[in-house]
Amino acid sequence: MRFDHAGIATDDAAALADLFSSLFDAEIAHDETFDGMRVVFLALENGYFELLEPLEEGTIAGYLERHGPGIHHLAVETDDVEAALETAREAGIELVDEEPRPGAWGHSVAFLHPRDTGGVLLEFVEH
Amino acid sequence: MRFDHAGIATDDAAALADLFSSLFDAEIAHDETFDGMRVVFLALENGYFELLEPLEEGTIAGYLERHGPGIHHLAVETDDVEAALETAREAGIELVDEEPRPGAWGHSVAFLHPRDTGGVLLEFVEH
Repeated sequence: MRFDHAGIATDDAAALADLFSSLFDAEIAHDETFDGMRVVFLALENGYFELLEPLEEGTIAGYLERHGPGIHHLAVETDDVEAALETAREAGIELVDEEPRPGAWGHSVAFLHPRDTGGVLLEFVEH
Repeated sequence: MRFDHAGIATDDAAALADLFSSLFDAEIAHDETFDGMRVVFLALENGYFELLEPLEEGTIAGYLERHGPGIHHLAVETDDVEAALETAREAGIELVDEEPRPGAWGHSVAFLHPRDTGGVLLEFVEH
């Protein structure tokens, strides 16, 4: 599988996109409002940083309140999220999403519970 | 620039490498003792997950005590860490490393302070 993106919780996606664009010679590949968040995908040569700015109460707003801004999750690209979930299920990992669901940028996604994955919130993404 | 790796703090690099290998169809590309840590690079098709298990007191051991296991930093590959540091310096970012220093796997690395980068600990890596 391929690294797809690192999801980053932020209070100001525009400012962080500007800073990271300058630091990494990267460009904004996608920018949308999705699920109560501004979601900006910043393109490196081989993957993305996904900047998540909450526009209302929700998961990311709660994360920012508890932890402050920072790295929220890691996403790995697969051509079959259902098969990837089945592998995780067989490994005894608790699934946040039992089935793939629509994610940002029109992707199909599913998250695994960090309790069973070394404290790392993991996402499978199918483009 | 390219995504290089996500650094993950863990109490058990071997177990996490086994799990992630299974989940992501990935393989261990490098495994060494470096700077008081066991450092395992797990290869995805286009980058790495770097598993960091402390073997003695140090930065990662302290991180585990304060935060528990999880995502520690994101590393971006550049062919010139000094130039990347200069860009960061000009952007007013506090540098953890004023000059490139030897990192794991024989790479040249430098970290930026997360206070100035949206709470994200960032590393530049030159192979």
